Amino acid sequence: METLKIIKIGGNIIDDATSLDNFLLEFSKITGPKVLVHGGGKLATKLAQQMNIKVEMVDGRRKTNAETLDIITMVYAGKINKKIVASLQKHSCNSIGFTGADGNTILSEKRLVKKIDYGFVGDVIHVNTAVLETLLSVGVTPVFCAITHDNKGQLLNTNADTIASELAIGFAKKYQTELYYCFERKGVLLDVNDDDSVVENINQEKYQELLEKNIIADGMLPKLNNCFHAINQKVHKVCIGKSEMLYNQNSKFTTIQA
Amino acid sequence: METLKIIKIGGNIIDDATSLDNFLLEFSKITGPKVLVHGGGKLATKLAQQMNIKVEMVDGRRKTNAETLDIITMVYAGKINKKIVASLQKHSCNSIGFTGADGNTILSEKRLVKKIDYGFVGDVIHVNTAVLETLLSVGVTPVFCAITHDNKGQLLNTNADTIASELAIGFAKKYQTELYYCFERKGVLLDVNDDDSVVENINQEKYQELLEKNIIADGMLPKLNNCFHAINQKVHKVCIGKSEMLYNQNSKFTTIQA
Repeated sequence: METLKIIKIGGNIIDDATSLDNFLLEFSKITGPKVLVHGGGKLATKLAQQMNIKVEMVDGRRKTNAETLDIITMVYAGKINKKIVASLQKHSCNSIGFTGADGNTILSEKRLVKKIDYGFVGDVIHVNTAVLETLLSVGVTPVFCAITHDNKGQLLNTNADTIASELAIGFAKKYQTELYYCFERKGVLLDVNDDDSVVENINQEKYQELLEKNIIADGMLPKLNNCFHAINQKVHKVCIGKSEMLYNQNSKFTTIQA
Repeated sequence: METLKIIKIGGNIIDDATSLDNFLLEFSKITGPKVLVHGGGKLATKLAQQMNIKVEMVDGRRKTNAETLDIITMVYAGKINKKIVASLQKHSCNSIGFTGADGNTILSEKRLVKKIDYGFVGDVIHVNTAVLETLLSVGVTPVFCAITHDNKGQLLNTNADTIASELAIGFAKKYQTELYYCFERKGVLLDVNDDDSVVENINQEKYQELLEKNIIADGMLPKLNNCFHAINQKVHKVCIGKSEMLYNQNSKFTTIQA
């Protein structure tokens, strides 16, 4: 089985033009089929402020009303996604920007209103990889932003970490899939204040041990649950760390495997 | 040779949600390979106003400075393009949104500053159809917005009519290419005030005749020059009229052929 790398980047790279361009140069050098997934960073909030659109919060999370969805679509699928694609072309990495609506690649359903109405937020229900495989086979790199659709004409805001893991799971039948979450830390840390206390390898057993010792910080829990969700569905491995884990052989990061 | 239809729509369809959805339903029913090209309508101007960004005019035309290019990228490639793609999926027409940067499909160069500096405006220098042909062959419809790139990382604003004709020319080696310009009139009119005075067929000879009689209105001249530019480069035929020319057999429109 051929190896496919799915790489997710977030705000710490996207929000800084130099970091982003440096990353994209290194990304373009990665050989073999690859897919890039990016979050939105701070630009959407900034645009909402410029447009005088109030951000509605529900239970500490931003509510995606129609206006916010428009902003997200403009910023994620427009400004950020196309800037990334144009930069990758500069570095001779042929790429095409995607939402989950493009090629009907990621189908989701609007989150049901129970106690909280999150608005136009979609939970992934199906990933179609056929068109993406065709593109990968001719050397094209898909670049995904964090938007999906319901196949009834509605775009939906979807968590970028989830998009990355669902794509990795979808591809796992055809490829040996490796999922990389790039963020601002070196990985899962034993001591949040010590960036060198990286836990380099985590399996199910180790994960239980860390949970029992209460070592995993709050923000890390949903990330790790996402990782094991992928691992349990045939994703070969998941790596968490700074983006340099992709190209600097001496860097430390966390690898999660079954 | 298989027939390929390149269809361009403008503000009269895009700016009205009902018109757009009706059009996309009819578009989705067109059999055989097809490509959609859309302009930007009034939404970009509206967003610029909301963001308090002043539109700089040079010689009666909007100047594309960096801020305006961002707005165009957000509105054309984000909001409009993704709304169209999501609607087409609803109508079971599998589509993928494109700028000229995606798949390195349309390469342009920043217009040289002579008397007037138009800013980030690109003139098309090359069209790569290989990736698009791959997608068409698996039943995917590319949907282009009016943005290209210079392959050095810079996105550029490009006229949507030009994008449509350059794509048609690029595809003419592989397909019998038909180019359709949908706009608010029934075609080239003998009398601007009479929508039924459509000139149904124009060739080079007829064109010269109309020019000599001073029948062609000012706004029509660049459109027709664009058409003959395409015809002279092996595009099979160009049709100009209301979008109903695509699906209503009784409608009158103008056909341009060599």
